[in-house]
Amino acid sequence: MKKYLLSEDDMPTQWYNILPDLPKPLLPPLHPVTHEPITAADLQPLLPDEVIAQEFSPQRWIDIPDEVRDVYRIWRPSPLYRADRLEKALDTPAKIYFKYEAVSPAGSHKPNTAVPQVFYNARQGVRRVTTETGAGQWGSALSFAGSLFGVEVTVYMVKASFQQKPHRRSLMETWGGEVFASPSTRTQAGRDILARDPGSPGSLGIAISEAVEDALAHDDTKFALGSAMNHVVLHQTVIGLEAKRQLEMAGDYPDVVIGCVGGGSNYSGLTFPFLADTLTGARSGTRFVAAEPAACPTLTRGRYAYDYPDTAGLGPLLHMKTMGHGFMPPPIHAGGLRFHGDAPTLCLLHDEGLVEAVAYNQNEVFTEAVRFARAEGFVMAPESSHALRGAVAEALAAKEAGEARTILFGFSGHGHFDMGAFDSFLAGRLEDYEVPQDQVDASLAELPKIPARTV
Amino acid sequence: MKKYLLSEDDMPTQWYNILPDLPKPLLPPLHPVTHEPITAADLQPLLPDEVIAQEFSPQRWIDIPDEVRDVYRIWRPSPLYRADRLEKALDTPAKIYFKYEAVSPAGSHKPNTAVPQVFYNARQGVRRVTTETGAGQWGSALSFAGSLFGVEVTVYMVKASFQQKPHRRSLMETWGGEVFASPSTRTQAGRDILARDPGSPGSLGIAISEAVEDALAHDDTKFALGSAMNHVVLHQTVIGLEAKRQLEMAGDYPDVVIGCVGGGSNYSGLTFPFLADTLTGARSGTRFVAAEPAACPTLTRGRYAYDYPDTAGLGPLLHMKTMGHGFMPPPIHAGGLRFHGDAPTLCLLHDEGLVEAVAYNQNEVFTEAVRFARAEGFVMAPESSHALRGAVAEALAAKEAGEARTILFGFSGHGHFDMGAFDSFLAGRLEDYEVPQDQVDASLAELPKIPARTV
Repeated sequence: MKKYLLSEDDMPTQWYNILPDLPKPLLPPLHPVTHEPITAADLQPLLPDEVIAQEFSPQRWIDIPDEVRDVYRIWRPSPLYRADRLEKALDTPAKIYFKYEAVSPAGSHKPNTAVPQVFYNARQGVRRVTTETGAGQWGSALSFAGSLFGVEVTVYMVKASFQQKPHRRSLMETWGGEVFASPSTRTQAGRDILARDPGSPGSLGIAISEAVEDALAHDDTKFALGSAMNHVVLHQTVIGLEAKRQLEMAGDYPDVVIGCVGGGSNYSGLTFPFLADTLTGARSGTRFVAAEPAACPTLTRGRYAYDYPDTAGLGPLLHMKTMGHGFMPPPIHAGGLRFHGDAPTLCLLHDEGLVEAVAYNQNEVFTEAVRFARAEGFVMAPESSHALRGAVAEALAAKEAGEARTILFGFSGHGHFDMGAFDSFLAGRLEDYEVPQDQVDASLAELPKIPARTV
Repeated sequence: MKKYLLSEDDMPTQWYNILPDLPKPLLPPLHPVTHEPITAADLQPLLPDEVIAQEFSPQRWIDIPDEVRDVYRIWRPSPLYRADRLEKALDTPAKIYFKYEAVSPAGSHKPNTAVPQVFYNARQGVRRVTTETGAGQWGSALSFAGSLFGVEVTVYMVKASFQQKPHRRSLMETWGGEVFASPSTRTQAGRDILARDPGSPGSLGIAISEAVEDALAHDDTKFALGSAMNHVVLHQTVIGLEAKRQLEMAGDYPDVVIGCVGGGSNYSGLTFPFLADTLTGARSGTRFVAAEPAACPTLTRGRYAYDYPDTAGLGPLLHMKTMGHGFMPPPIHAGGLRFHGDAPTLCLLHDEGLVEAVAYNQNEVFTEAVRFARAEGFVMAPESSHALRGAVAEALAAKEAGEARTILFGFSGHGHFDMGAFDSFLAGRLEDYEVPQDQVDASLAELPKIPARTV
C-alpha cells in the first residue's frame, strides 16, 4: 500500500463553493409555512450568521478561519492511499486510490463541518447547539467539536440506533454531549409521534424535527445539520481539494470518482473539486458515481421535487431527489445512509446527467468490506463500503474490458463501532432489502404541494 | 495541537536491540523442565529461526526486512503530537508530547511486532500461528498480519474478555482469525483448568499455555507472543526511534518518558531508544517512568525471580519481576495490562534503578482519559490512559515546582472498543482494586524453585 501525504502547509486555506459553477441555478430553499424563498432572517433563529451567508454565497472560494484550521490540523491533511494489495486481489489493470477520512478523532469525515459550524456558533456567543444523529457519526463529530470550543451539544439520536449502538452514545458522552433517544418526550414533534406510535424506532427526519424545535424554543441555542445543505457540503470540500493535490503527487487524475451517499456531504466533499474541472471545462471525460443503499434509493428511485428535510415539516423545503419526508427505510447497518433526501446541489448534478447513481444491497457491500480488510488492513464503516463496492465494480469492469482505469473512492469512516454488523455478516445473518414500489409510491404521494410559480 | 510527521523515507530501517547496552548481562531464559539455559533448538518447535536468532542477538541494530517495511508503511511513521490544549487545561509550564500508535489498522502498537513475526513464519513455510490474547489487541494485530501474509491465525482469548468484548472477536474474525474462549476444551491445559474450575474466567497465563500446547502439537504450526520476550521488545523500538527524530524536529528532548506496562513491549519500544542515550552516556538526567495498574502491580510489588510466562508452566522460565504465574488480577478494563510478569530487559533496568515504576487505579486513569478526549479529541484505550495519568502527574508536579519540563508519553492504542468501560466510568460504576498482600504472598509462594547455580 502506497500512501500520499501532504504537509500541513498544503492543507487547503479555502473551501470550494460549487454554487457559481452549477450548470443552472439551484432553486432556492422555501419557507416551510409560506412556501416563499427563505431569507437569511428566516434562518437566524436556527443558524449562525456566517453559516447563513455561506449557504447562499456566490463566491467560488471561502476562507477557512485559522481557528478551524488549527483544529483540522489534529487529523488533516488526511492520507490518500493506493490500494495496490486490493488491485492484486482483484487481478485488475485498474489503479484504485482511496481518500482516508477515518483518522479524525470521531472516525469519519463529519468533523470537517462540525468544527466550523461549532466555531461560528461559539464566535457568535451561542451557548448550545442541537442536532440529529442516526448511527451516531454526526452526533459524535458535533460533540467532539463542542468540547473543543466550549459549546454544549444536545443530540437527538434515532431510537433504534440509540438502543443498538450504546457505544456511539458513550462516545458522545465522553466528549460531553447530551444524548436523547428520538422520538423523545422533550419536544412536541416527539410527543406527537409517540402518541401515534409509542414503539416508533425513530428516523433521521423525526430527529431533525426534534432538534429544530428544541433550538427554536431557546434563544441561546441553535441547530446544526450534518449534511444536505450547501454550507455543510462546502466545508467537506477539504477532502477533494486535498485528494486532487495528492493525485498530482502520484502523477494521476481519476477516470472515475466514487462516494457513498446518505445526505450527500461526504460525496460532494470528495467529488465537487473534481467536478469543478468538468464544469469549468478544464477536464472532460471524468465519471462521477454515487453509491447508495438499495434500502434507501434516493437518487435511483426518488422524485426530484421540493420536500422537507424532516418528518414534522419544520425545516426549509429543499428542491432535491427524495423518497418523501415520511419514508421509513429498512433497518440496514449503514445508518448514515438512511436519509430520505440528498443535497440539492448533488441532486441537480445528478438530474443534469453529470453524476451517475447506483444502489447496492448490504451483503455485497460487506463482502467487499471484508475482502478489503484482509487485503489492506483497514476495517471500513458500512456506509463507506458502498463506495468500495462501486470501486470494485469499476475495477472488475476495467479487467473485463482489459483497460487501465484510475479509480478514486472515499473511505469516509472506520467500522470500529459497527463490528456487530460484521459479526452478523460473517454469521450469514445479514438481510438484504428491496423497497416495494407501493411503499415508494405511498411515500411520494405525501410530498408537499408547491405552487408552480416557485418552481 | 501541533503534530510532527516524518516522511516514509525517515521510517527506521533497523530495530534497536538493547541487549548489548544493558548495564549487566541478562540472566538467560531456562528450559521449563530441565531448568538449564534454553537453546535455539529448544525453541524451534515454537518460533521461527529468525525470531530465535533475534531473541539472543548481540547486535545493537537489526535490519527490518523490506516486506515488513512495506506493511509498516500502511500506518508508519506514526505522528508525534504536542498536546498543547491539555497543557492549557492543566495550566502547566510543562510541554507534553505523545507518540500516537492508534493509527495502525488494529488500533494499537501491537502490529509493529505481529507483522515481522508473521512474516518470518511465512518465509519459513509455517502454515498456522497460535497465540493468546487478553482484551484482544494482540489477537487483532496477529490476525491482521496473518491476513496479509496468508498465514492462518488461531487465538486463545481470555474467556472473560471473550464474553465482555464480542466486538474484538468480530474484528479478529473479519481478518480471518479463528478465536476460542480460553480455557477451552481444545488443549490439555484448558481441560485441566476446566476440570478444577468449570467457571474459570481465564487469564493470559492460561491462554499462553493453550496456545503453546496447540503449537507444540502440530508440526506446521508455531506460536507468537505479544510481549515480554526480547524479539518482541526490539520490534517495538520503531516507536521510540521515530519519536526521537520527531522530537529533534521540535528541537526538544524529553526530561521524562512515560509508558504503560502490561508485559512491557509498548513501554520498551518507546523508551529503549531514549534509554540507549543514558546507557551509552550520550545523555544524562532523563527519567523513565513505567505506569502499571494497581490491580496488577508487577514492578511496584512483584518479586525479581525466575518464573513461567504461563499458568501451566509450558513456556521458558524468564528472570523477571513477577506476581507469580498463578496470579489472577482483578477484572480491570485495561485487559492488556493484566499480565503477571514483565519483559526481562525492562525488569533488569527497573532493578538497576534506571526505570521508576508507579501504579494507578482505574478511576483516576479514566478521569484523565476523559479530560484528554475533551481537550485533544482522541479517545484513548484504558491501557494507554495509565501513561497519560503519569504524564499529567509530571505536568502538575512541574507546575507545583514552577519549572519547565518536557514530557513524552506513549499513546499506545485507541479506546474505540472500550466504550463500555467509559460508560461505566461516566455512570460512576467503575471499581478500584487494591490487591491484598496475602494474595500476593500466596501467589509468590508458588514461584518455581530454581537452583542457585543458574541464578
